[in-house]
Amino acid sequence: MNEAVTHESVKHAMQPEDTPELRELYKGFADNNLIPLWTQLGDLMPVHPKSKAVPFVWKWSELLPLAERSGELVPVGRGGERRAIGLANPGLAPNAYISPTLWAAIQYLGPRETAPEHRHSQNAFRFVVEGEGVWTVVNGDPVRMSRGDLLLTPGWNFHGHHNDRDAPMAWIDGLDIPFSQQMDVGFFEFGSDRVTDYATPNFSRGERLWCHPGLRPLSQLRDTVSSPIGAYRWEYTDRALTEQLLLEDEGQPATVGQGHAAIRYVNPTTGGDVMPTIRCEFHRLREGVETPTRQDVGSNVFQVFHGRGAVVLGGKTHTLEKGDMFVVPSWIPFSFQAETQFDLFAFSDAPIMERLHFARTRIEGRD
Amino acid sequence: MNEAVTHESVKHAMQPEDTPELRELYKGFADNNLIPLWTQLGDLMPVHPKSKAVPFVWKWSELLPLAERSGELVPVGRGGERRAIGLANPGLAPNAYISPTLWAAIQYLGPRETAPEHRHSQNAFRFVVEGEGVWTVVNGDPVRMSRGDLLLTPGWNFHGHHNDRDAPMAWIDGLDIPFSQQMDVGFFEFGSDRVTDYATPNFSRGERLWCHPGLRPLSQLRDTVSSPIGAYRWEYTDRALTEQLLLEDEGQPATVGQGHAAIRYVNPTTGGDVMPTIRCEFHRLREGVETPTRQDVGSNVFQVFHGRGAVVLGGKTHTLEKGDMFVVPSWIPFSFQAETQFDLFAFSDAPIMERLHFARTRIEGRD
Amino acid sequence: MNEAVTHESVKHAMQPEDTPELRELYKGFADNNLIPLWTQLGDLMPVHPKSKAVPFVWKWSELLPLAERSGELVPVGRGGERRAIGLANPGLAPNAYISPTLWAAIQYLGPRETAPEHRHSQNAFRFVVEGEGVWTVVNGDPVRMSRGDLLLTPGWNFHGHHNDRDAPMAWIDGLDIPFSQQMDVGFFEFGSDRVTDYATPNFSRGERLWCHPGLRPLSQLRDTVSSPIGAYRWEYTDRALTEQLLLEDEGQPATVGQGHAAIRYVNPTTGGDVMPTIRCEFHRLREGVETPTRQDVGSNVFQVFHGRGAVVLGGKTHTLEKGDMFVVPSWIPFSFQAETQFDLFAFSDAPIMERLHFARTRIEGRD
Amino acid sequence: MNEAVTHESVKHAMQPEDTPELRELYKGFADNNLIPLWTQLGDLMPVHPKSKAVPFVWKWSELLPLAERSGELVPVGRGGERRAIGLANPGLAPNAYISPTLWAAIQYLGPRETAPEHRHSQNAFRFVVEGEGVWTVVNGDPVRMSRGDLLLTPGWNFHGHHNDRDAPMAWIDGLDIPFSQQMDVGFFEFGSDRVTDYATPNFSRGERLWCHPGLRPLSQLRDTVSSPIGAYRWEYTDRALTEQLLLEDEGQPATVGQGHAAIRYVNPTTGGDVMPTIRCEFHRLREGVETPTRQDVGSNVFQVFHGRGAVVLGGKTHTLEKGDMFVVPSWIPFSFQAETQFDLFAFSDAPIMERLHFARTRIEGRD
Repeated sequence: MNEAVTHESVKHAMQPEDTPELRELYKGFADNNLIPLWTQLGDLMPVHPKSKAVPFVWKWSELLPLAERSGELVPVGRGGERRAIGLANPGLAPNAYISPTLWAAIQYLGPRETAPEHRHSQNAFRFVVEGEGVWTVVNGDPVRMSRGDLLLTPGWNFHGHHNDRDAPMAWIDGLDIPFSQQMDVGFFEFGSDRVTDYATPNFSRGERLWCHPGLRPLSQLRDTVSSPIGAYRWEYTDRALTEQLLLEDEGQPATVGQGHAAIRYVNPTTGGDVMPTIRCEFHRLREGVETPTRQDVGSNVFQVFHGRGAVVLGGKTHTLEKGDMFVVPSWIPFSFQAETQFDLFAFSDAPIMERLHFARTRIEGRD
Repeated sequence: MNEAVTHESVKHAMQPEDTPELRELYKGFADNNLIPLWTQLGDLMPVHPKSKAVPFVWKWSELLPLAERSGELVPVGRGGERRAIGLANPGLAPNAYISPTLWAAIQYLGPRETAPEHRHSQNAFRFVVEGEGVWTVVNGDPVRMSRGDLLLTPGWNFHGHHNDRDAPMAWIDGLDIPFSQQMDVGFFEFGSDRVTDYATPNFSRGERLWCHPGLRPLSQLRDTVSSPIGAYRWEYTDRALTEQLLLEDEGQPATVGQGHAAIRYVNPTTGGDVMPTIRCEFHRLREGVETPTRQDVGSNVFQVFHGRGAVVLGGKTHTLEKGDMFVVPSWIPFSFQAETQFDLFAFSDAPIMERLHFARTRIEGRD
Repeated sequence: MNEAVTHESVKHAMQPEDTPELRELYKGFADNNLIPLWTQLGDLMPVHPKSKAVPFVWKWSELLPLAERSGELVPVGRGGERRAIGLANPGLAPNAYISPTLWAAIQYLGPRETAPEHRHSQNAFRFVVEGEGVWTVVNGDPVRMSRGDLLLTPGWNFHGHHNDRDAPMAWIDGLDIPFSQQMDVGFFEFGSDRVTDYATPNFSRGERLWCHPGLRPLSQLRDTVSSPIGAYRWEYTDRALTEQLLLEDEGQPATVGQGHAAIRYVNPTTGGDVMPTIRCEFHRLREGVETPTRQDVGSNVFQVFHGRGAVVLGGKTHTLEKGDMFVVPSWIPFSFQAETQFDLFAFSDAPIMERLHFARTRIEGRD
Repeated sequence: MNEAVTHESVKHAMQPEDTPELRELYKGFADNNLIPLWTQLGDLMPVHPKSKAVPFVWKWSELLPLAERSGELVPVGRGGERRAIGLANPGLAPNAYISPTLWAAIQYLGPRETAPEHRHSQNAFRFVVEGEGVWTVVNGDPVRMSRGDLLLTPGWNFHGHHNDRDAPMAWIDGLDIPFSQQMDVGFFEFGSDRVTDYATPNFSRGERLWCHPGLRPLSQLRDTVSSPIGAYRWEYTDRALTEQLLLEDEGQPATVGQGHAAIRYVNPTTGGDVMPTIRCEFHRLREGVETPTRQDVGSNVFQVFHGRGAVVLGGKTHTLEKGDMFVVPSWIPFSFQAETQFDLFAFSDAPIMERLHFARTRIEGRD
C-alpha cells in the first residue's frame, strides 16, 4: 500500500500523449456515448467525499419576513400545493436542494387557509420552531402542530394542512426530494382540495394509540416501515432531555457527552428511525459546552430551537439564534459552542448511509 | 392423506406378537439404553398438544392469607432468598410449575424487610395487584413497586427488594424457571445480603431515560435483548386502554375485538417482547363482553386486576374476582365473560413458541 | 457481590424451625396447590446447569445388530410408523430422550420395505453413516439417502421412506421430540400408507433448484423457516473439509482450530441453521489432534463417521469407532483426541439456546 | 381524492400574477438562497418517475473495437488506474453514468499487463462475456476471470488485475459510482503498483471456503455486508438454469415464467444480494419466449451473454446479439423476445430501492 500517493500526485501518469490517433479514438468514444475512466477518475472517485454542496447558514430573521411577504402575495392552493420556500444550497444551484439528499423549506399558512391534500413517495416531516394553530391531516387523522413538535408524513400518506386561527403560522418542512428526484423513485397523487377533516383535537388518533411508553396496541402488531406516531410532542422531548441532564448531575451515564443531552425520534414498532430515509434528533447543550469536531458521511441539517451559540462549520464560526438553520454537507467538520443553554433540532440522511453501509463517522479525539 | 386415521385407531397395527424372541430383543434394548419408537409413538407425537399440565384456578382469597401467614412464620434472607410461594400445577406435581415453561408465585415482604440480592439466567417479572411500599433494586437502580405496575428483572441482572414501609406488601412473580430447569440453561450467583441502594425515588433511572414515547436516548443506541424499562406504570397502561375504548366509540380501529382493549408490554429498542421467553400483556373487557374461544400453542397465565367475570377454561366456567389467577395449558380452549369492566394482566411463553416457529392459534369463527 | 457463597453453604439459612404452626402452613400450601420456593431454590436455580441427563456412549457394534434383529421381528407400518429405536439417556428414564431437547434413534428398513407417510410439528433429520438404497419422500419429492448424506424433514412436511434394494439399510434419526413433548407444541397427521412417489432419482427436486453455490432461484425469493435443501451430499461436505485443511496447510485462516476443519449445514435462504431447533455440523480432525475442553449450554450429540479416536466426556475418556454415538449434556466438559483422521457428524439444540439468549460457551484457555 | 387531476392541468393554479411586488419577493428569495416550491413542484414531484436517463443500447460490435484500440494507444497504470471506458447515458451527459445510480464500462487488459491495486467505498463487479487469462487479486486472493463468471470486489477491498497470457482480454465492470458521487459517500485509497500475488490458481481461496452448497465454514460465522464469494462460476450458473428448465419440463414450479429461468447471485451468509447497492442476476429464455412488459422503480442494465433476441424498451424494439448492453431507466416499460435460447446477465440498483422502501414493480397482466 502506498498511502502518501494522492490523485493529485499521480493524475497525469496514465494520460496518453495527444496524437491524431488518440483524438480519433476519443471521437469514437463520443460517437458511441462512451467516456474513458482515466480522464476523470479523481472526480468520480475522490480520496474522501467532496460534496458540491457547501456549508451554509440561513438566518431566521431573513427567512420569516420573506415567508410572511409570500403570505401576502402568493395564494395557496391546488397546483403549487404549498406556500413553501426551499433553502437552496449555493453549491447545488439551480436546484432547491439543501443537500444532495435533503430538501428543507419554511412553510407559511395564513389565517383560516387550507393547503390541499396530496400524497407522494417522498418522506416528509415538519418541525415547529414557534407558533400554533395549524392542524395537518394525515390519512384523515388531524394532527395539531405546536411549538417544539415534530410531525411526520411518511411516504404515500395523504396529507393537507389548515389553519384554524386568525393568526398565521410558519414552520419548517424536511423531505427527501433531492434523493427521490435524482434516484427517480417518486410518485405523486392529488387528493381532496380541502382537508378531509377539520376537527381540531389536542391529540391525533395515532398518538392516542401509540404514545404510551413501552406499550403496544395488541391490534397493531405488524411492524411499519415508518413510525405510526404522527406527532412527537415538545413536552416529551423537553422532559427526556431534562432527565438526561439530571441523571448526568447524579453521576449516571445518560448523555452522549459531558453537558450534551440528545434524543433520537424513533418508530416504536422497531426502535429504529422514524422514516427509511430521514433521521430526526434533538440536541441540548448546557451553557458553555463545546462539542468535539465531528465528520459524518451524509448530510446533516440543524435548526436552532432555543438559546444562542455557534457552529464551527468547515473551519468557519457562525453565530446562531432561534430559528437559524444550517446544512453540513458530507464529511465537512463541525462542532458546537453553547453560549446559553442551546437547543437544536437536527435531521439527516443517516438511514440511507447506514442501510447501504456507507456510514462513517470521525470524532475528534476518538480515532 | 388419510385424515380420519388417528393414533387410537391404528396404534396396535405395528405391535408385533409377544414371543420369546421379541422379549429377548426388548431385553437387548433395555440393556443398551434403547427404547423402540413403535411402542410409544402416540405419547411422543400426539395429534395435537396434550399437556400434562391442567387448567387450574387459584383464588386470591386463599393465596393472600397463606402468604401473610408465611410472613409470620418464615424469615426472609440468604439461602431461601425470597418469601415466594409457587403456584404448582396439579398435573405437573411434584414440581412447582404453573406450566411446562412458566413459574408463578405470590411473594410477600413484611414491614422494613429486605430480600437479598442475587442474579440468575432466568427471566423474571413482578406484577402488583394491590399495595405499595416496596422497591426492587435492579443492577443498582431502585424501582418503586405500586399497584398495577409491571416490573422487570431480565436474566442475569442483580436484584433484591426492600420494604420501606410499616405495612407488608404482596405481589406476583413470573419466571421461566420450568423452561430453564428442564432445558438446563440456568446459572445463579449470590449478590449483596442487603440491597445496594435503599433510596426510594418515584421513578427509576431506567424509566427516566426510556419512558418518553417514541424518543430514544442517543447514548443508548445498541438494542438490548430485554427491555431497558424496569417499570411499566399503571398510569400509562390504564390510559392506553381507556384511549382504545374511546377510539372504538368513535368508530376507529383500535381494539382487538368489540369491547376488548389490550396492550402488549414491549422492549422499546425493538418493539418486541420485553424478554426473550416471556410475553406480558394487559386486557380490558367492557362490561358484558364475551370473547371468542381461543386456543394457543404454549401456556398462558392470567391474574384478574379489577372487576368480576368468568373464564371458560377447557369447557368449564370459573367465576373470577380481583387477584384470582389461572393457567391455560397449551391448546386448551378458553374464553372470557365480563360481568363488570374486567381487567386482566396476562403473561405467556409465546416468545419461545414464535422464535422456534411452533406458534399456532385458533380462534373460534376465524378458521 | 459475594462470590464464595454457594447454595450449599447457605441453604439452611432461611429454613424455619419445624413447629405445629409451620406444619399447618405447609398443609395449607399443599391443599391449595402451592409449593414454597425457599425449600427448593437450589434445585430450581442451580449455580450452573446440572442436567439430569448424563454423558453416555452408545456403540455402533451394539446398535446395529439390535436394529437388524428388529428387522426380523418387527414389521414396519401404519401405527408404529417407523422401525426406529431411540437412544434413551439413563438419566432421563423412562423417556426415550437422548437429552432434554433431542431424540436420536437408529432406524432400519428391510429390502423393499416402505415406512408410511405422515407429518408432525417436530423437526427431523437423518444422517447416513453407511449404506444406500433408501429414498425418503418429502412432500412428494424423492430424496436419495446415501453414505455421508444429511437429509432434512423440517416440521409439518409429509414424509415416508422406501427401500428400493434387496439389502437392508440403517441410519440415524435426530428430532426435537423431547423439547416438543415437554413444551406441548406437537401436532401430528397421518398421510399415505405408501410413499406418494416411488421414483429413485439421483437428485431431489430441492437439490436441483437450490444446490448451486451462491445462486438463488428467482422463483424462490421468500425466506423459509427451514432449509429448502432436502439432502446435503457427502461429496460436498468432504470437499469443503478437505479444502479447509489444504488452506490451513497454505497458511490461510480456514479452520476453527489447528487441524480442526468444520462446517455447519445452513439454510441458503438465510445463512442460518437448517431448522429452528436443531443445528447440524460436521467436524474433521487431523490425526493426532487434541481439541481444547469445551462447555456449552445446551446438549450436543455426535456420531463417528470415520476413523478412530476418543472423547473425554465429563472427565472420563471413551474410545470411539465408526458409528459410535454419544451425548454431551448441558455444561458437561468435553474434548476430542484423534487417533487417525477423525470425522464426526454433530447435532445440537444450539438454535434454541441462541434464539432465547441462553447460549454460553466456555473454551479452555480462552476465558 | 381527485385522480384525474394532473400537474399539467393544475400547474398554473397557484402562480401569482407578475407584479413589481412579486418580483421584489423573488429577488429576496434569490438573494437569500431560497427557491419557492410552487414554481417547480411538477419537476420535483412528478406523478411517476421520469428519469433524465434514457433507454439506450450499446452494441458489442462497437464497444470491443474501441476497447482494443485503447489497448494500443493508452497505457494502463497508476493514476488512471484502469483502461475502462464508461457507457454514458445520453440523458445524463456530461457524466459517464449509465443510470443515476450505476456505472458500466468495458475494461481491457493487454497481454501481460497489470492494473495496479487500489480500494474504494464503491462496490464493484466484473462480468466476462468472453475470454480468459486475467486474474483479479482481491485483498490478496487471486481470482481467475473466465467466460460467464461474475467476479465481486465489494467496497473497500483492495484489488488489482493482471493478464497472465499473451492475448488481451475484455470484460464489463459494474459499479455504484453515480450513486456514490451524487450522495457524497466515496473514499479512495491507492495500493500496490503491482498486484500483491501473481499466482494463477483455478479457484480463489474465497471459493474454496464458501462454494459448497448449504455448507458454511465454522470459522466464518459472522455475517458479512457483501458476499464472501469472489467468483460465481459459469459452470454453476449454467447448471442452475438448465435444471430449472428441466424441472419446468417435468411440470414442477421452478421458473419465474413459462420458459424463463433465472437466478439471483446471493451472499451465502444472508441469502440476500451480493452487495448493498447492486443486485446481479442471470436470465435464460427459451427460444420463442416473450416476457410480459415490466416496469421497475430503479434502473436495470443487461448484457446479452448468448443467443439472439430483442428488447422492447420504452415502446421501441432493439435487436440484440452477444455482448450488446442496454439500460432501462426507472419506470420505463421493457420486455424480451427470444429468437434463439437467449441468455442475459443483469444488474440493477434494486437493493437501494428495497432497503429504502421505494421499490415498486408493475408487470403487465398482474395488476
